[in-house]
Order: sequence, then C-alpha cells, then structure tokens
Amino acid sequence: MAMDGYKHFLVLLVSALLVGFLSVIFSLVWVLHFRGGLGWDGTDLEFNWHPVFMVTGFVFIQGIAITVYRLPWTWKCSKLLMKSIHAGLNAVAAILAIIALVAVFENRNFRNIPHLYSLHGWVGLIVVIFYILQLLVGFSVFLLPWAPLSLRAFLMPIHVYSGLLLFGTVILTVLMGVTEKLLFTLSNPPYSSFPPEGVFANTLGLLTLVFGALIFWIVTRPQWKRPNEPNSTLLQPNGGTVERVEGSMATSYGHNMDKSDSKLNNEVAARKRNLALDEAVQRSTM
Amino acid sequence: MAMDGYKHFLVLLVSALLVGFLSVIFSLVWVLHFRGGLGWDGTDLEFNWHPVFMVTGFVFIQGIAITVYRLPWTWKCSKLLMKSIHAGLNAVAAILAIIALVAVFENRNFRNIPHLYSLHGWVGLIVVIFYILQLLVGFSVFLLPWAPLSLRAFLMPIHVYSGLLLFGTVILTVLMGVTEKLLFTLSNPPYSSFPPEGVFANTLGLLTLVFGALIFWIVTRPQWKRPNEPNSTLLQPNGGTVERVEGSMATSYGHNMDKSDSKLNNEVAARKRNLALDEAVQRSTM
Repeated sequence: MAMDGYKHFLVLLVSALLVGFLSVIFSLVWVLHFRGGLGWDGTDLEFNWHPVFMVTGFVFIQGIAITVYRLPWTWKCSKLLMKSIHAGLNAVAAILAIIALVAVFENRNFRNIPHLYSLHGWVGLIVVIFYILQLLVGFSVFLLPWAPLSLRAFLMPIHVYSGLLLFGTVILTVLMGVTEKLLFTLSNPPYSSFPPEGVFANTLGLLTLVFGALIFWIVTRPQWKRPNEPNSTLLQPNGGTVERVEGSMATSYGHNMDKSDSKLNNEVAARKRNLALDEAVQRSTM
Repeated sequence: MAMDGYKHFLVLLVSALLVGFLSVIFSLVWVLHFRGGLGWDGTDLEFNWHPVFMVTGFVFIQGIAITVYRLPWTWKCSKLLMKSIHAGLNAVAAILAIIALVAVFENRNFRNIPHLYSLHGWVGLIVVIFYILQLLVGFSVFLLPWAPLSLRAFLMPIHVYSGLLLFGTVILTVLMGVTEKLLFTLSNPPYSSFPPEGVFANTLGLLTLVFGALIFWIVTRPQWKRPNEPNSTLLQPNGGTVERVEGSMATSYGHNMDKSDSKLNNEVAARKRNLALDEAVQRSTM
C-alpha cells in the first residue's frame, strides 16, 4: 500500500475505533447514570445488559471482525490465522448478542410482558438467527479444510454480502431499540421536551450509525483489500483455474504506460492488478 | 451478459420491484385502513402522507434510481440519458421526501408537539439534508458538462458510497418511524398484544428491509455493472489517462485460457475485463 493510502487508512481506522469505543462508553453511561445500573435479577437492571452487550458485541466487535483482513500489518500473517481471528471475533460478538437476548427475555418474563411483538424484536431475532447461521456456514466452509474450492468460490460473495447486510441490520436494530426504550421510559419529563437522557441516547444512536458508516467505507475500498497470496490459484466463474494471471496482466498494463516514472507505474500497475483480481481475490479462500 | 446471469438478474430485479411495490401498497393500506385515511388539514390525516410518501419516494423510487445503470437493455442508451434518468428519479424521491416532511411539520404545529426530538427525527433530518446535497453535487459534477475529469474521478467512489449509505439510512429511518408510530398510537389493544395493525406495520417494516437487501445485492454484483463505453478514456488515479487498456488485457487473459470453447472464453474474458475495469468504469463518467 502506498504511504498516502496507508495514512488515509490509518486515519479512518482510528476514527472508527474511537467512535465505536465511544458508543460502548455511551451505552454504559446510559444504563449506569440514567437507568439505575446493572444487575442479573430479572429486573430492569438485568435488561440494562441488553444495550451494553449489543453495542459492545454486536456492533463494536462485529465491526472490528469485518475489518481485520484490511489491516496492512497483518498481510504477512497467514490467511488461516486471519480467518481464525475473524471467526473468533464474530463468535465473541454472537455470544454477547445471545447473553443480551437472555437478559431481555428474563426481564420480560419477570415483568410478565409478551416477547417479540415489536418490529425491533422481529428484526432483532431474525438478525441473530442469520448471524449464527452465517457463523456456522463460515466456520464449516471457509475455516475447516474440507469444503471443495468450487463451494468456497460460490459462497464467498454471498458470505461477504450477508456479513455486511447483517452488520447494517444490527445497527438498524440498535437504533430501533434506542427509539423503543426512550419511548417506553421517558415520561416525566417526556422525550418531546428534550430531556438529557433523550439527547444522550439519541447521540448514542448517531455514534453507532457513524461507526457503521466508517466501517462500510473501510471495507468497501478495493485499494485496501488484503492482496492475493503470491502463488495462489485463482478461481474462474466456471470453476476452472487460471494460475498467475497477475504477471501477464501487469505486463500488458506496463506496455500502455510511460516508463519515465517507474515507481508511479508500479503503483498504478499494482492498483490495476488489484482491481482486476478483485473478484478472484474475493473468491479465493486460501 | 451471459444468458444465465441475465435470468438471475431478471429474477432478482422483478423480486425487488414486487417487494418494493408491496411496501408502497402496505404503507397505503396502513394509513387508509388502520389510520383513518389521508387529508391535508393539519390533522393526523395530513401526517398520514408522511409514511406513504417516504416509502414511495424515499425508499421505492430511490431504490429504482440506484439500479437504473444495471438494466442490461439500457446499456445501448447513452450514458448521458441514463444519468438524466438517475438524477430525475432521485429528484422525484427528494421532492416526495420534502412533501412528507412538510406533512409531519404541519401536523406537529397543528397539534402543538415539538419537532425533531426523537432519534427518528434526528437521523431523518440528517439524511434528507445529505440526500439533497448528494443530488446537487451529483447534478453539478456528473450531469453538467463542466466539471474537470479529475474532480469526477475523485468524487465518483464517494458518490457511490454516499448513495448506498443514504439509501440504507433511509430504510433504517423508516423502520424507526414505524416503531415510533406504533408505540405512539397503539394503546387499546396495546402493541404488546399483537393487534392486527402492529403485525401489519411490522410486516411493512420487514418488506422495506427486504427491498433494501435485494437492491443492495443487485447493485453490488460486479458482473452486473454497466460495461464501459467502447472508446472511452479511462482515468488513472493520478489523473492521467490510459486509453484502450481493454484490448491488451483481454489478450493477456486469452493467452492463459483453453481455446476449446471460444464462447465461454469470450464470456470469461469479458467478465475479467469488466472486473479489471471496475474502478476505471466507476471513475469514467461519460
């Protein structure tokens, strides 16, 4: 990665981490300062773990899990190690999300309130189920060594798309949850009178949204993708293979360019090569 | 586009249109059947235009506006025509969103309720402002002929990213709005007793989300991108140009492939070329 691109990447990554960390702090301050604290006794103190674990696990840790392949200092690490970290972080996120669900179910039982009637509940349940499915499919197809390459190639674009869709839907669900909680609890003074808790929790919602927007920018820049392994086998759409296409492509690009600035040429060629291999890299899984 | 890919594209496009159209119907049935109908008198009948126009304009029409470049039967039309259709549909969406905002502001004034205190209000206002900004920048940089190519090249990835982020955030805001409206209005029987209106409006929320998911899949498949113009000038990251790279790339790919099935080879080559030119196409604006 060129030095300029690297600095740009770092600025965005640090911003994302700061905003994500701030969201976690905001979720904690919300429940500790405004909502009476935390507990595990069925009361609203148990419910309070719900926003904290959802923002920490399902938003912040999932956001980091999505981004790990993009960290340039990990590009020398094996793909297997990075996949393990990706899967591990997503597993931690799933566990925290499940504990967060248990907290809300136990609280509803304690207070004798029906479960899963709201849109937040519906979308939230769907997203947790699909997230666990995504984790299981990801683990068995991409991490375990037995899946045939053709299956990996077929599933990789779906895995990437589903992952980003799930991440976006989690953020959507968090913002619906903040809306719901504030409308349930703020009555005197009401939400409409701009009480400190309303403004504070709205800000938590905005921070979560900004975190999501930063992660989406980082993971959709083609120039920040983890480069393909030097000797890897690239998959064609029909399941056949084309080996070492890079060399010939770089050459053909080279012929079209002015040779006066070789450093620039190399960077441009690398960049073009990267783009050309975009889908191939996405499909290659070792 | 190969016949298989074309059929797959059509199935997804028709599904998206059906789900989007169903969302519009659901928003209408919600206000006509459950919320007393439509009017323009400051009362809640005026408010009722808010969900209808938001779902119709800001979700459905915006979704179509994002997708127009992907329709294979428009690839023979000039890029200028397609850009005009893209801008026109987005302008219609913006106008409907503004009318939807006027409806809610007039209703709040009429009922003496404060404006913009909720997270739905905050995110909604931000998204409308940025959407209008995106429209103005898009119009003056990409549609009007005067912006330098380097500026277009710089802004295009940001325009694409912002467009998709705005679309996702609109859907998020719609689901928060449904949540808010149901919690405000359902009391006897309450939302928690699964009344028909609650289940119906939740389903509207899910339909909107599924519409968004389908549009996101369609517009992020590299193989369904509008191909580059045959004789267009491709921009390099440094602002210089590389002309007709396609030919040499196709050739270099050709050398690596088995020649026994020339139709398949051509398709694979076209596909690879398409991917290689991914960023270049994104950056080229005529």
